[in-house]
Amino acid sequence: MSDQYQSSNVFNPPDRLLLGPGPSNVHPKVIQAMTAPMLGHLDPDFVAIMDDVQRMLRLVFKTKEGFTLPVSGTGTAGMEAALVNLLEPGDTIVIAVNGFFGGRLEDIATRIGARVERVDFEWGSVVDPQKVREVVQRQDSVKMVGVVHVETSTGVISPLEDIAAIAHEKDALLLVDAVTSLGGCDVDMDSWDLDVVYSGTQKCLGAPSGLAPLALSGRAMEALRKRSSKVPSFYLDVSILDQYWNEGGGRTYHHTAPITMIYALWQALDLLLLEGLEERFARHHRVASALRAGLSAIGLEPIVKSNWAPPLTTVAIPDGISDTAVRGRMLREHDIEIGGGLGVFKDKAWRIGLMGYNAAPANALRVLSALEQALAAEGYEVARGRSLEAAQMSLAS
Amino acid sequence: MSDQYQSSNVFNPPDRLLLGPGPSNVHPKVIQAMTAPMLGHLDPDFVAIMDDVQRMLRLVFKTKEGFTLPVSGTGTAGMEAALVNLLEPGDTIVIAVNGFFGGRLEDIATRIGARVERVDFEWGSVVDPQKVREVVQRQDSVKMVGVVHVETSTGVISPLEDIAAIAHEKDALLLVDAVTSLGGCDVDMDSWDLDVVYSGTQKCLGAPSGLAPLALSGRAMEALRKRSSKVPSFYLDVSILDQYWNEGGGRTYHHTAPITMIYALWQALDLLLLEGLEERFARHHRVASALRAGLSAIGLEPIVKSNWAPPLTTVAIPDGISDTAVRGRMLREHDIEIGGGLGVFKDKAWRIGLMGYNAAPANALRVLSALEQALAAEGYEVARGRSLEAAQMSLAS
Repeated sequence: MSDQYQSSNVFNPPDRLLLGPGPSNVHPKVIQAMTAPMLGHLDPDFVAIMDDVQRMLRLVFKTKEGFTLPVSGTGTAGMEAALVNLLEPGDTIVIAVNGFFGGRLEDIATRIGARVERVDFEWGSVVDPQKVREVVQRQDSVKMVGVVHVETSTGVISPLEDIAAIAHEKDALLLVDAVTSLGGCDVDMDSWDLDVVYSGTQKCLGAPSGLAPLALSGRAMEALRKRSSKVPSFYLDVSILDQYWNEGGGRTYHHTAPITMIYALWQALDLLLLEGLEERFARHHRVASALRAGLSAIGLEPIVKSNWAPPLTTVAIPDGISDTAVRGRMLREHDIEIGGGLGVFKDKAWRIGLMGYNAAPANALRVLSALEQALAAEGYEVARGRSLEAAQMSLAS
Repeated sequence: MSDQYQSSNVFNPPDRLLLGPGPSNVHPKVIQAMTAPMLGHLDPDFVAIMDDVQRMLRLVFKTKEGFTLPVSGTGTAGMEAALVNLLEPGDTIVIAVNGFFGGRLEDIATRIGARVERVDFEWGSVVDPQKVREVVQRQDSVKMVGVVHVETSTGVISPLEDIAAIAHEKDALLLVDAVTSLGGCDVDMDSWDLDVVYSGTQKCLGAPSGLAPLALSGRAMEALRKRSSKVPSFYLDVSILDQYWNEGGGRTYHHTAPITMIYALWQALDLLLLEGLEERFARHHRVASALRAGLSAIGLEPIVKSNWAPPLTTVAIPDGISDTAVRGRMLREHDIEIGGGLGVFKDKAWRIGLMGYNAAPANALRVLSALEQALAAEGYEVARGRSLEAAQMSLAS
């Protein structure tokens, strides 16, 4: 069989600028970290790196005592870990749904056998805490309230502190999807009193996809200890993962950690913290403002009316312009990836991410320039250079 | 908070030879593959790589029509994916348990709500198909029979073809844990009529840890379509993953694939198939024989009496010798990791893996030389050079 094998030679990735909703390009030091000598998952030198990753994650999540670890899977594994560890069959979860990923929270919670109460908001609009409060208060009891911090399908950012207070009034936990926010927007776990927060590595954290940082408050860890049934997933069971990730658990083998991904995360977190969280948020804001000024100058309208998060810029596709034609040109002619719409915005919106290492002024200018060219080639009337002028003025202000 | 950040500088992995039960060191081309330009998970150039990974996995699993994909998690995620997609609450699974990972199959199946019938064998002994048959035949109905091909806790290899026939007599599926065998021992999915087979990338496949190749037969895919309940895990739901991995599914977004890990797997599989499966199995066998001849020459006895798989060599720790003292010396003084015992063999056995890229004569000689020195330093009487002599004679024969 194998003597007929012919190598395909398809492995020859072109050099793309990844400005979709993630993955994003990463700093060369992060790539380099993955080439460091491989260690075993119980090697003392690896354990020291694990401890340090946890310390850095606590700084990034802004929690002094919270339990943190990177789940060995992508952001969706983080979402599933958050739900599966803290919901039991029959538990009620109230989920604020203002986009695609709110809907995914419902899907996973339903598979666990939880009772889901949705609070729906128009896609692109912010979650209104008062509407969440009404639904929470109506329930006999609520185990958890779930909200997406920055909806990756729209780019809108919702307020967490008020929703946390609403959950706690009812003795419920607050679950937060911070996949698109962590590392690009403030996520203040302790001050805002958040309980279960997860993210992905491939967006504002600046690492490749493959890990899902997860943080649990003391309240969440207490709820985990009080479960009456086993966590249905062994792979994602935090009570056992804890025995591997914490010295006190005797470093008990659970699964073979993805060593090279943890190297990449260590390096990405170190770069992030050396830059400084506030400086990093300001950079994301400055670059997003320039991009948005440029898009507006050529008539591309936001699909978000307020509370637009810096990491992800979403604009409506002009009438008569083909989504796939423009994105195809961007990719083939300019080596730039931008994202299409998800769910109700499929074929109707573009999603442009300036995240982590990619949140740089030069990338904002490059994508605007390419977009002007691609739109013009597709027959959209665009005053050449107009978007670049507006973006540069924004950067200079 | 972040302005008080001090980089720990703990990220400085030493150059170790990893001869435990995995992770193993990987070929430099595999490391290099991870540094290739990052692509998006829907980029046509990435999709071509995905297609090729599936083609190569079919060659490695020896299946013409089976469905294959790398699960975005480690080997244990592969195990969970195999069980969670094909077992429903109340289903009966008969599990042959002859070591640690058979027990893990039971743990996960129980969490799903399946009824588990264990067929126990002494650790270190091979699974006897006739005993499995007795238990299978006694059941009203059986959904699945589960067996570990090479038990990573002992190194014993069990026969699959007979057990597959026993499962199919009862209209059950055969699940196979091929974590330690795939790429190092023959796994012939089509000829042996296996239904659900999973592995991990960090052993004989020669890639870093982080992905779990999974293969399903037509019979298994049919059973998946006939489920009466949703798969409890969204992240591992093959019916949705299929829509992303197969052209016919419209490449529907499910989760952001771990791009760099897939690059590494592509390169590792290409190297494997260029070498040739049969040549690779022969290499694992030749190198293991040399190691075993060497260990035997200095009085280290196998814990496996028959059916000893080449990838993993397990020997009893001599009386009066400390497991941790010897492994500590191996690590600190020789930069070699070997594995300790798991479960009933904790403190009682060593596990030495010569897997994938590491299955090389020089590594067999290096670990024997280091082991002679570490054992002598711990007071074990060893005739210096004796193990090397025996290993060289084995290699020359």
